[in-house]
Amino acid sequence: MSGALHILGLGPGDPELVSLKAARLLGSAPVFCFFAKRGRTGHARAIATPHLNPAAEELRFDYPFTTDLSVEDPRYLIEMGAFYDRCAETIAAHLDAGRDVALLCEGDPFLYGSAMYPFDRLRHRYRVEVVPGITAMSGCWSQAQAPMVHGDDILTVLPATLDSDSLAARLRTADAAVIMKLGRHLPRLRGILNTLGLTGRALYVERGTMPGGQAVPLAARDDSPAPYFSLLLIPGRQRPR
Amino acid sequence: MSGALHILGLGPGDPELVSLKAARLLGSAPVFCFFAKRGRTGHARAIATPHLNPAAEELRFDYPFTTDLSVEDPRYLIEMGAFYDRCAETIAAHLDAGRDVALLCEGDPFLYGSAMYPFDRLRHRYRVEVVPGITAMSGCWSQAQAPMVHGDDILTVLPATLDSDSLAARLRTADAAVIMKLGRHLPRLRGILNTLGLTGRALYVERGTMPGGQAVPLAARDDSPAPYFSLLLIPGRQRPR
Repeated sequence: MSGALHILGLGPGDPELVSLKAARLLGSAPVFCFFAKRGRTGHARAIATPHLNPAAEELRFDYPFTTDLSVEDPRYLIEMGAFYDRCAETIAAHLDAGRDVALLCEGDPFLYGSAMYPFDRLRHRYRVEVVPGITAMSGCWSQAQAPMVHGDDILTVLPATLDSDSLAARLRTADAAVIMKLGRHLPRLRGILNTLGLTGRALYVERGTMPGGQAVPLAARDDSPAPYFSLLLIPGRQRPR
Repeated sequence: MSGALHILGLGPGDPELVSLKAARLLGSAPVFCFFAKRGRTGHARAIATPHLNPAAEELRFDYPFTTDLSVEDPRYLIEMGAFYDRCAETIAAHLDAGRDVALLCEGDPFLYGSAMYPFDRLRHRYRVEVVPGITAMSGCWSQAQAPMVHGDDILTVLPATLDSDSLAARLRTADAAVIMKLGRHLPRLRGILNTLGLTGRALYVERGTMPGGQAVPLAARDDSPAPYFSLLLIPGRQRPR
């Protein structure tokens, strides 16, 4: 009988924000795997560390070097597709041998997670269970102590990598917004938010729920590039309660 | 020394999707409290049950009867405001006596959560910690095995209680959407999604991660009123990977 694939959301960073279910499955998985950038520990791997079965086999999937390719470049899609194909077949070999496999995911697996790509390749061939996790954005607005969405507010979650016109159009009509993937886009976002009169409501949050985590008004943040674990929050406006 | 208020996100429904941190704080809290509708167990209370300190003091906050008042009616805001004032003062009395208090919240406390109202009243007077939780929507898209947001997709989260023009305008430009608070609005939502050509992509999910949970294409769901624990998902379109 084939093994089962458990896709585990591990939350925003604090290992204690892992769910009881994910911790149980981490503790019993004979094989676990995760994506990471070359030369880095891997965020999901770091969160999982205190919960892992010490006897488990570890599979590390290093992202290919694609920094010289735009995500719009067809070669990028081909290279990434081939990479996810190889990862899926590595997982499949363990499942075929009857071993359950845990795929570790930071945050929630189905919100901007790489786990969606092996999931799509394996879902019709094997038993797959998806365990949701606490998102990075929940970790950040808790760290910032910023209530986000009230009553009939609409929440918009958008990546800073979009073009400026798209960002401005969406932010103009947003009740509450989360801007992900800040990186080198922070100065451009600041300009857009200034134009829209939103800078006074915006919070910058870095490493939410992790050691050294901080939340500050955007106005108090300089324009140096933002680390990977950062985002902007524009909390919804509280109704008069 | 005053006690601390711990606002605990308890996730979408499965008690095993509580975080290790929330479970630890539930197990040690001398006092816990939660909101509930009259005559109901209370969703957060039900999730917390296996994790509670058996010796803890329980405070139940029954929502006032407001079904005859529109949420736009000033009397509704006044009545709810007075209710949250009373809840906050009940919590404050325990904190003043040096007892920590756990406020139980379904999902994540700061995403459409009632906990935001006592938080606003107590945050400047006491030590308050907010523990994020897995949202109902993450629970539902995991239950549905529906990858939601890829690459540069924008996610829009909106309540079905909005007027039809607002809903249509937002859904027309959404890459991926979550429609909360369905209730009696399901037939109206179906009409809007039909007009926009989105019905084929929409999933109806009920009681995600709970016993009896189910996910079906919207086209397979009739128009009977939707229970409280239900929502519609419109997953983002996978890029060609």
